[in-house]
Amino acid sequence: MANYSADLSSVYYALADPTRRAIVGALGRGPEAVSALAAPFAMALPSFMKHLGVLERSGVIRSRKEGRVRTCELVPKTLSQAERWLAAQRATWEARTDRMVAFVEDLHRNESSRAKPRR
Amino acid sequence: MANYSADLSSVYYALADPTRRAIVGALGRGPEAVSALAAPFAMALPSFMKHLGVLERSGVIRSRKEGRVRTCELVPKTLSQAERWLAAQRATWEARTDRMVAFVEDLHRNESSRAKPRR
Repeated sequence: MANYSADLSSVYYALADPTRRAIVGALGRGPEAVSALAAPFAMALPSFMKHLGVLERSGVIRSRKEGRVRTCELVPKTLSQAERWLAAQRATWEARTDRMVAFVEDLHRNESSRAKPRR
Repeated sequence: MANYSADLSSVYYALADPTRRAIVGALGRGPEAVSALAAPFAMALPSFMKHLGVLERSGVIRSRKEGRVRTCELVPKTLSQAERWLAAQRATWEARTDRMVAFVEDLHRNESSRAKPRR
């Protein structure tokens, strides 16, 4: 990650909209010019550009202009950070569940050994 | 997932705040009463309750009240959905990268076989 770290709040905020998630889905198949990217969306271009702005400021996508064509592409590293945070929460939660299962199994083993009839 | 599916937009929106992410982190270690959960945060209780409300409405956490104590816990399934969406985007992107690498390798192989001196 070096000295680059997207702000997780702005990344999750960027993903909190179905249009913006659809844009991310489309760019997963490769970089695309804004006009081609916008075409499937029933939306005025200024509104669409606002969504691209939110995605770009969060670091989820980046764009470059060559002549009159602006091309957008995903920044996979940013999405990875958002995925890693969620994976870390799951790891914490699963570790806790594992400890609980081990505890209950121990309890059960002790109960059964105590329940055995003595001879 | 059956007939339950949290709205991804509200889930990502819920995660787009450092306080709410810290609450998720704390609840990963187990259910907790609101008062204990709020203690480490330098924040008035009404503001804290608003954050809990956003998390609960998105399905990231749930709470129950027993007597005067409200206890919160994570809903791991909701976070898993958010993680899976990100993993799916990565899979799409990685499949594309793999195809590009294969394409470039093919190109390189063809170039080298053509560059061999003929006898």
